[in-house]
Amino acid sequence: MGNLEAQNLFWIGLVGAVLALLFALFQSRKVLRFSEGTDLMKKIAASIRQGANAYLKRQYTTVVKFFIVMVIILAILAVVKFVSPFVPFAFVTGGFYSALAGFVGMKIATSSNARTAHAAHESLNKGLNVAFSSGAVMGFTVVGLGLLDISVWFIILNYGFHLPFSEIAQTMVMFGMGASSMALFARVGGGIFTKAADVGADLVGKVEAGIPEDDPRNPATIADNVGDNVGDVAGMGADLYESYVGSILATFALGASAYGALGKGWNAMLLPVAIAVVGVLCSILGTFLIRTKEDATQKSLLATLRKGTYTAAALAAILAAPLTWFILGSEYMGVYVAILAGLVAGCAIGYFTEYYTSDTYKPTQTLADSTETGAATTIIGGISLGMKSTAAPIVIIAIAVIVAFLSAGGSLSTNSADYAALFSKGLYGIGIAAVGMLSTLGITLATDAYGPVADNAGGIAEMSGLGEEVRERTDALDSLGNTTAATGKGFAIGSAALTALALLVSYVDVVNGKLAEMGDGHLLDLSLTNPAVLVGLFIGAMLTFMFAAMTMSGVQRAAQSIVVEVRRQFREIQGIMEGKTDPDYAACVDLCTRGALHEMIAPSLLAVIVPIITGLILGAEGVVGLLGGVTVTGFVVAVFMSNAGGAWDNAKKYIEGGKHGGKGSDCHKAAVIGDTVGDPFKDTSGPSLNILIKLCSTVSIVFSTLIVNFNLFK
Amino acid sequence: MGNLEAQNLFWIGLVGAVLALLFALFQSRKVLRFSEGTDLMKKIAASIRQGANAYLKRQYTTVVKFFIVMVIILAILAVVKFVSPFVPFAFVTGGFYSALAGFVGMKIATSSNARTAHAAHESLNKGLNVAFSSGAVMGFTVVGLGLLDISVWFIILNYGFHLPFSEIAQTMVMFGMGASSMALFARVGGGIFTKAADVGADLVGKVEAGIPEDDPRNPATIADNVGDNVGDVAGMGADLYESYVGSILATFALGASAYGALGKGWNAMLLPVAIAVVGVLCSILGTFLIRTKEDATQKSLLATLRKGTYTAAALAAILAAPLTWFILGSEYMGVYVAILAGLVAGCAIGYFTEYYTSDTYKPTQTLADSTETGAATTIIGGISLGMKSTAAPIVIIAIAVIVAFLSAGGSLSTNSADYAALFSKGLYGIGIAAVGMLSTLGITLATDAYGPVADNAGGIAEMSGLGEEVRERTDALDSLGNTTAATGKGFAIGSAALTALALLVSYVDVVNGKLAEMGDGHLLDLSLTNPAVLVGLFIGAMLTFMFAAMTMSGVQRAAQSIVVEVRRQFREIQGIMEGKTDPDYAACVDLCTRGALHEMIAPSLLAVIVPIITGLILGAEGVVGLLGGVTVTGFVVAVFMSNAGGAWDNAKKYIEGGKHGGKGSDCHKAAVIGDTVGDPFKDTSGPSLNILIKLCSTVSIVFSTLIVNFNLFK
Repeated sequence: MGNLEAQNLFWIGLVGAVLALLFALFQSRKVLRFSEGTDLMKKIAASIRQGANAYLKRQYTTVVKFFIVMVIILAILAVVKFVSPFVPFAFVTGGFYSALAGFVGMKIATSSNARTAHAAHESLNKGLNVAFSSGAVMGFTVVGLGLLDISVWFIILNYGFHLPFSEIAQTMVMFGMGASSMALFARVGGGIFTKAADVGADLVGKVEAGIPEDDPRNPATIADNVGDNVGDVAGMGADLYESYVGSILATFALGASAYGALGKGWNAMLLPVAIAVVGVLCSILGTFLIRTKEDATQKSLLATLRKGTYTAAALAAILAAPLTWFILGSEYMGVYVAILAGLVAGCAIGYFTEYYTSDTYKPTQTLADSTETGAATTIIGGISLGMKSTAAPIVIIAIAVIVAFLSAGGSLSTNSADYAALFSKGLYGIGIAAVGMLSTLGITLATDAYGPVADNAGGIAEMSGLGEEVRERTDALDSLGNTTAATGKGFAIGSAALTALALLVSYVDVVNGKLAEMGDGHLLDLSLTNPAVLVGLFIGAMLTFMFAAMTMSGVQRAAQSIVVEVRRQFREIQGIMEGKTDPDYAACVDLCTRGALHEMIAPSLLAVIVPIITGLILGAEGVVGLLGGVTVTGFVVAVFMSNAGGAWDNAKKYIEGGKHGGKGSDCHKAAVIGDTVGDPFKDTSGPSLNILIKLCSTVSIVFSTLIVNFNLFK
Repeated sequence: MGNLEAQNLFWIGLVGAVLALLFALFQSRKVLRFSEGTDLMKKIAASIRQGANAYLKRQYTTVVKFFIVMVIILAILAVVKFVSPFVPFAFVTGGFYSALAGFVGMKIATSSNARTAHAAHESLNKGLNVAFSSGAVMGFTVVGLGLLDISVWFIILNYGFHLPFSEIAQTMVMFGMGASSMALFARVGGGIFTKAADVGADLVGKVEAGIPEDDPRNPATIADNVGDNVGDVAGMGADLYESYVGSILATFALGASAYGALGKGWNAMLLPVAIAVVGVLCSILGTFLIRTKEDATQKSLLATLRKGTYTAAALAAILAAPLTWFILGSEYMGVYVAILAGLVAGCAIGYFTEYYTSDTYKPTQTLADSTETGAATTIIGGISLGMKSTAAPIVIIAIAVIVAFLSAGGSLSTNSADYAALFSKGLYGIGIAAVGMLSTLGITLATDAYGPVADNAGGIAEMSGLGEEVRERTDALDSLGNTTAATGKGFAIGSAALTALALLVSYVDVVNGKLAEMGDGHLLDLSLTNPAVLVGLFIGAMLTFMFAAMTMSGVQRAAQSIVVEVRRQFREIQGIMEGKTDPDYAACVDLCTRGALHEMIAPSLLAVIVPIITGLILGAEGVVGLLGGVTVTGFVVAVFMSNAGGAWDNAKKYIEGGKHGGKGSDCHKAAVIGDTVGDPFKDTSGPSLNILIKLCSTVSIVFSTLIVNFNLFK
């Protein structure tokens, strides 16, 4: 395809966006046709919806303040020509779309929970159907809004301002920061909310008062269900929205610099968009495969979900070949191998995440064994399981990076004459691998976002007394959701790592571009022996550990306030335990909201400020070191924390299933302690680290001109 | 000073070595003049000594096999000229001296424990005196043997083989691997032994049978005391021996390349040795200051120890100025600032370690508060405390590296015309900072090695029924030992990080030298955007996490076997609980020995094999990435684990002191769980990581020629 044709084909991005959004609308209509069940169910669902809405509104109000300050800063930078004048606007649209994706996902999830419970009353399959469709709304909204943001901006810059491709690429790579910032607030705030409510509800309700989970007498139970929505749904949506957009934008920048001189700049930029659009089509096809027989077992349900996602991935893998051939030309088919590397790596990481966290495999069973000698060995066992589980994802990412780099044309031998040119082609391979991994996000995210809905449905079934049978079905759906959530988490981490690497290398690209413009012969020495780079690495590692620590202690403090409140209600409100009086659910929701909003600020600001300060002291070299350090340690710690937490959770469930003495045994008590430690690991700190590593990159890219011009040791 | 004079002044290293060893001998004579007390005390001490000797013998037998295999491999590499013919021999001497240092330290420690207990019977001060002198034997033996190894090899290569300085430097930098390997085995094996015994003894004795710690009825109690010696004494000695030698050898290499062209190669190599010798003198002077009045309180005891170490450091700081001026010349006084940076950083890291782990400060008190809501929040609190505590040491190391680099003449601005020349001067600064930090190791290690002796003395006092008063005194000594141990651990980690960085940059030096020799124009691209470097970073991080996980689960498995054995003895041997029959102590010692030796092999081999395989696949660039990754993550994780473990330990002691309900309360139970989790954190995995990061560097340096010649993507 010629360069000009490629330039004028970007409207397919818009088509993909509209398709995805229409499909989301179609799915949401389908869900809303179902009944919410009894009046009690409607009332409970309304409370959850109300709590979630109230939280999100206040979260957005807090975040808007941050956005206003940032827009003013960016506007000043734009005036002094340190960023492109489009950046402040793009910052706002990125944040807005990211928030919108989370909001829509949360909206549909809180409308589907009671419907899922009611449908499960009829059959397991109907329950699955409602919950999965709700997940699909979220999945396709994220993808659709992502493509919409990119395409509209592209059309404005191309047809409105007639910028050359290289300038579009260099400008648009700065557009990720809005989405990243929004995502971080959503993830951290939501993560603290959900775990504060969960831990607080469990510590007093289950442990002290001895009432079951989701018991309506527990004042924190609504807050707990609200938490599932604001943390797992809205937070997850914002996270993956960001990876999706970030990987495409980074690939724009890398493509422009690798293929610009070859006269294929537009082509190299079109390819990621085209792959994303094809991914939307394949994902839609995949969802139609998710149909089950009426007598389905849980295992066959999982097989059905898998059939949908794997078929979509396989289809995308097949179609990417002619697409690459058509857009880049037959001599660049190595790029296709890079796309495949990303797709395969995503699936492989998902598999290993499941291996380490599911109780059908040995690691979690061994962890359950370690409860025999008490809580201490349970904790040591979980920590060492989590640490060991980092090896497989690292090896997979390592292989994917090397394969993508080499097959896309890069060379690791510095003897090559045109090392630099080959090198930038190779880097484009890393970017496109990330795009490949995320291409079928629509359906992957659907299976992932289905989990919290099923979880909520179980809570509503319990609270509205729907009976043992329905609760069993919602438990089956929930347990299936735990498996897909584990795979989804692995996928989110893997894609975040690849996206962060793509952003890291495009940061270097951007800085080198600035230096060439300034023309003072100043070059970056990014060698690892450069103390600025080395120290940057250390600072990056510190950022990961500080961030993880702050989010964890945020949960602890917020949970502490819930514990006090629930104890107070049990003490002061007469008749709660007899079921005569309703507890004050709203007070707990409000406390969680305030706690989460209060605790999310410091770690989020840390992520924005540390890269800038590091840059102002150590220059761009220090920033590159920081990005390397935070990406590597953030990835490893995220995998460690998510998998340790997941394994503790499932070891507890495994014991509750009757092993090691079952519920109430000493082993179960030890397992509950493990699970409680794992809660902030897997649902707050771990997933937030995904965003931390991307936000550091996007912040650095936006502030690159400032850093290049002002730093202490320049 | 002229170059020739410098060349012929290296005999002062030998003088320093002899002085240190004589002083160690003097101290050991002093200790041995004290009485071991009653017959029962003698008997118990003999059992501990016997167990420790038996363990060390078997450990050495296992390690010898590894050494034989390695020597054969190195001999083959020497024959094909891939390493210098001296390397196999130096590998053996390094390992031998390292083992000898550990052995002597352990020998004197097991001879001093009963003597300390008996002396404490007379007065607190006498007890301190014996225990500290025992620590001094270890401290000065380590320093003396380190200087001896370096000086003798230097003299052989200089006067025997008449090698030029650059060749001596390039050869001797390869000599660290023997000491590193030995140290790793000692640390991992000893660390697993000590914690398997400790955890095993506590889980059955304290928790199940309800008998106090160190109760003679507990079959694992002798093993527990043996563990203090083989882990904390022998392991620590081997660890710091290695940092000491490694930092000097790395500085040789960096000095030769930075100052060779300036005609000051010998001078730059003499300086680290001279500083080490001055450090020996200052340390000896410092020990004489450690004298107390008879009515000393614990606080004044700590002040006394501090007076000794700080005076030695201050003295060394003062004397280093004329020394630098005399050896390098007045135009290079920036190097002196680098030495100071190292010395100050060592003290500062020690201070922050104490801040985060001592119960006189807020972090540990807050951790004790979190026991109020149970074990789960205690664990979360400890983990987040440990993670937060990484910030200060990282910032300190970062500042020390930048200050050392810049003041020694390095430049961070790539605009400088002679960037490369300045750069190598700066790197020399990093090496000499590590030497500065370690210069007063004699006395620092003495205060550190004193701890386990006091711990053992307490155990002997308890077992031989010396009465409440003596036990109180030994407890005071032990508690003082915990404080100095915390400071010592921070110091060990800080020096390991600086030494590893110095080794990392000298690795690059060595490889660049080889490439220049080969003259094929092949250059290293160590840029962080090079996928080989990036992937190396990930592999390095993986190594840290795998290693930590393996050592932790090693402890868990070994402890499990002790639990089974102790339960068996309680069940099968009649009359243990009534105190009528002695339990079979030897069986537990034997089990710990076998467990430790079995579990130490896999993680140790991992540390040797992964850097070589990474090199064979990704080349020297991948190895540099790996070294960066393992140094940064290893440092952070070591600080995290050591400090979390230390804080849990002291939070427990704080509660035992009467806070939060005191002994036996629910808070205490939660704190005991925290402490048990912390045991392998702070005494096995954490400290072993110090060695891991250095061993990876020394292995890489030795195998550099192989890697440069053979790798997959060359």
